[in-house]
Amino acid sequence: GTAAQGGGADEKDYKEPPPAPLFEAEELTSWSFYRAGIAEFLATFLFLYISVLTVMGVVGNPSGSKCGTVGIQGIAWSFGGMIFVLVYCTAGISGGHINPAVTFGLFLARKLSLTRAVFYMVMQCLGAICGAGVVKGFQTTLYQGNGGGANSVAPGYTKGDGLGAEIVGTFVLVYTVFSATDAKRSARDSHVPILAPLPIGFAVFLVHLATIPITGTGINPARSLGAAIIYNKKQAWDDHQWIFWVGPFIGAALAAIYHVVVIRAIPFKSRD
Amino acid sequence: GTAAQGGGADEKDYKEPPPAPLFEAEELTSWSFYRAGIAEFLATFLFLYISVLTVMGVVGNPSGSKCGTVGIQGIAWSFGGMIFVLVYCTAGISGGHINPAVTFGLFLARKLSLTRAVFYMVMQCLGAICGAGVVKGFQTTLYQGNGGGANSVAPGYTKGDGLGAEIVGTFVLVYTVFSATDAKRSARDSHVPILAPLPIGFAVFLVHLATIPITGTGINPARSLGAAIIYNKKQAWDDHQWIFWVGPFIGAALAAIYHVVVIRAIPFKSRD
Amino acid sequence: GTAAQGGGADEKDYKEPPPAPLFEAEELTSWSFYRAGIAEFLATFLFLYISVLTVMGVVGNPSGSKCGTVGIQGIAWSFGGMIFVLVYCTAGISGGHINPAVTFGLFLARKLSLTRAVFYMVMQCLGAICGAGVVKGFQTTLYQGNGGGANSVAPGYTKGDGLGAEIVGTFVLVYTVFSATDAKRSARDSHVPILAPLPIGFAVFLVHLATIPITGTGINPARSLGAAIIYNKKQAWDDHQWIFWVGPFIGAALAAIYHVVVIRAIPFKSRD
Amino acid sequence: GTAAQGGGADEKDYKEPPPAPLFEAEELTSWSFYRAGIAEFLATFLFLYISVLTVMGVVGNPSGSKCGTVGIQGIAWSFGGMIFVLVYCTAGISGGHINPAVTFGLFLARKLSLTRAVFYMVMQCLGAICGAGVVKGFQTTLYQGNGGGANSVAPGYTKGDGLGAEIVGTFVLVYTVFSATDAKRSARDSHVPILAPLPIGFAVFLVHLATIPITGTGINPARSLGAAIIYNKKQAWDDHQWIFWVGPFIGAALAAIYHVVVIRAIPFKSRD
Repeated sequence: GTAAQGGGADEKDYKEPPPAPLFEAEELTSWSFYRAGIAEFLATFLFLYISVLTVMGVVGNPSGSKCGTVGIQGIAWSFGGMIFVLVYCTAGISGGHINPAVTFGLFLARKLSLTRAVFYMVMQCLGAICGAGVVKGFQTTLYQGNGGGANSVAPGYTKGDGLGAEIVGTFVLVYTVFSATDAKRSARDSHVPILAPLPIGFAVFLVHLATIPITGTGINPARSLGAAIIYNKKQAWDDHQWIFWVGPFIGAALAAIYHVVVIRAIPFKSRD
Repeated sequence: GTAAQGGGADEKDYKEPPPAPLFEAEELTSWSFYRAGIAEFLATFLFLYISVLTVMGVVGNPSGSKCGTVGIQGIAWSFGGMIFVLVYCTAGISGGHINPAVTFGLFLARKLSLTRAVFYMVMQCLGAICGAGVVKGFQTTLYQGNGGGANSVAPGYTKGDGLGAEIVGTFVLVYTVFSATDAKRSARDSHVPILAPLPIGFAVFLVHLATIPITGTGINPARSLGAAIIYNKKQAWDDHQWIFWVGPFIGAALAAIYHVVVIRAIPFKSRD
Repeated sequence: GTAAQGGGADEKDYKEPPPAPLFEAEELTSWSFYRAGIAEFLATFLFLYISVLTVMGVVGNPSGSKCGTVGIQGIAWSFGGMIFVLVYCTAGISGGHINPAVTFGLFLARKLSLTRAVFYMVMQCLGAICGAGVVKGFQTTLYQGNGGGANSVAPGYTKGDGLGAEIVGTFVLVYTVFSATDAKRSARDSHVPILAPLPIGFAVFLVHLATIPITGTGINPARSLGAAIIYNKKQAWDDHQWIFWVGPFIGAALAAIYHVVVIRAIPFKSRD
Repeated sequence: GTAAQGGGADEKDYKEPPPAPLFEAEELTSWSFYRAGIAEFLATFLFLYISVLTVMGVVGNPSGSKCGTVGIQGIAWSFGGMIFVLVYCTAGISGGHINPAVTFGLFLARKLSLTRAVFYMVMQCLGAICGAGVVKGFQTTLYQGNGGGANSVAPGYTKGDGLGAEIVGTFVLVYTVFSATDAKRSARDSHVPILAPLPIGFAVFLVHLATIPITGTGINPARSLGAAIIYNKKQAWDDHQWIFWVGPFIGAALAAIYHVVVIRAIPFKSRD
């Protein structure tokens, strides 16, 4: 029995967890539910604050050349690195979404209730608006004169290009989230949830490297909304801003479908 | 006995696993075999999509200067970072090869069957073609006017230089793969397979830092084929493109030989 | 009982540790107390040495362009990377603070005694002064002619901007420290303290990406003091240098309050 | 007894390992001894190959501007990243030194025998010479016209500056090696040796960020020797090349003394 005891911790049977209920009245009365919302607000606030401030430092550099700044690559590090740090810090409190598209994808896979999903998205959007607002507060002229870190489709690209870039980019992110936090994987090896923030943050970094020239890279509706509202309230719902909600939600849905159907094969299992 | 029980988990005897059979009929009937192929297709698709899009953003920048882009270093991060993320995400599904040279090296060391090796390579090449195709779809003119992310030997270097750079570069990658996923090492410490994606991704990043000026860095026949076919179907099998198959396969074979002969000393053990 | 034994290691009850006493006479007689102080001195010395030397290499480059240097992004890596390495190296000896603001935040949360906190801060400041002094020793003219790596509020920003940037920046750092080293989290998973240095170092890197254009980024009173004293003894306590003590201490206090009140909810628990 | 069994693995008493003998005849007859030497040769070969090739790509860029290359920061990543990957790959085979200064420091702390230390250093130097030689083989004119990646004290700095930079830089590296591979730490937590390559590689990266403008950064006598011999056989022992042996060995010795005297307090313990 000794060997079996040792092995038991690693190889214990994995049972698919039951899907989260749509509405869970009980969680509305627990402190941990509201604490999770506060954590999502704070994380999205800090995410926008650091990343948009970095964008301003690069695009607003008076010398004209970007060689005297951290550069476009520095912007990509800022977005990806903050996601790494913030997912690490909030994973144990709220699950570390910091992005309505991630919340949406996990909701589709029934990892959290509808109540919690809506609550998280509201808190994320509020946090993003406040974060961008503080950056604007530092230097309003600089902020308004340099695009305010808002997303838009770059000249030379069609709306379809922008939508496609957002869909595939968000797919990369949410696909990584599902792979990294897979409960079945956790059952085999307890280290994964701890290590997960690194590939998730890297996924955000890499999508920025690729799509900053196309859309400025959204793949996070709260980030796009926050910057757009603070930059120009009118524009927030105009023009192409629907791209930064529709694209990420489609990408997240595709990642959820891929995970549930291909990786988990849950539809086929449930017929047994 | 208490101390022995504690130590047992870490120091349990390691037995060389039997070599994988060349043909395993059973695996052709399992869903996990096809799921692994789909995972390899998807990962190689995303790999080419993100990395070639990053290349286009740098080399196609209209300002002429690369200071307004993520730069050549950003390209290296894109290739290496995607391998880190994708190996992390697919390691538990397919082993996370995403590269026919890696599949070839592991096949030579008899870590997988011939059937599986061929299936993986086909799926990797299809994924790479689709990934590069989507990038071309965004802006065909930009793509065709800037080399399409295809590999070629740079002016000033001979074919022999290019072949040598591909051989040693792929050796670095496959040597890291063998070291990081070594079953003997895993027996001693179960964390290695989880941490392995990071050095593997870094190896790809570092080879890009060194050999982008020589060949654009292939070290992955699927990546080279995908970009070449989409850039110019005729060129895909012309000119120097054989370098990007022969070089990586030689490098992978050398790494497999080094691992089996020097590190494992399997030929010498089997005489006992 | 077998399963319970296995699970016991992961799910053991967490008890809030008692707050550290303000004065602990016993620790003053232990070698480990003084060893911790020496470790803080050495770490802060190496931190300033490497980071200020990197700053000098960038801002003092004779070509005028930063393309021939590691760039502003390289400066951010230098500060953040050193914190990663040094926290990793000293975590087991002193807790790896290397920053009076971190010590202050942990003291407010009663993680260490007042005696130890004051001792650490003194050693950190001495280490920082020595580290900056060695850099000046290499090339005094270069050092004095290029600002000596000292922090100051950039032209175009108000003192309030600088103070705000230091408060939020230090909040990001100390919030990460609390999240990463949370004893409750450690009780669930013993790997966190080992992995903690990476997000902590990344937090420092990211704050530098964002606020180098505003204040040069302090978020560490010892770092600001060391560079200011060596650059110009008179200036060290003049002008805006109070910003680099008051800002970080406010940010650290806010992070401590957030952790104790929101995450831990200790004030509400103690009423039971 | 159950709880004690579980806890035993983490908290087992640590006993200072006995110092390695100066000469160990037995190891000369084991395959693992020669395999370790081969691993050191191969790792140092790959280290010089990738890093010197990266240097050539940056300094030999025909456009004159470094914006079209991976930049000086890319060089620092190349050296540090390779050490991360190679220490990861060879740690279980040879201990992953890849640097005579590291071998020297560990020898002083009596972690390996004199026989093994000398054997490693010889293999490291041979590997470095071969690695630099292959780079020269690609394009001799480019290599000879751009300094060949050899270390030298930059104009404007004295020999003393160069020596000091090498001493402190190597101290940072060997101090990290000792901290990361500390056997006492391993006794408490078995994950450290697995994670150790990351801070070690980062230490090399960070020292390069800081001291490339002063000496090109040696902190590794094999790396300096290999590049110097291949660049110009005559110069290898001329001029300032002694700096790149004496500096690193002094730095490594200081780190060994710090670890043994301050961290371990071994001299004081042995009086009991």
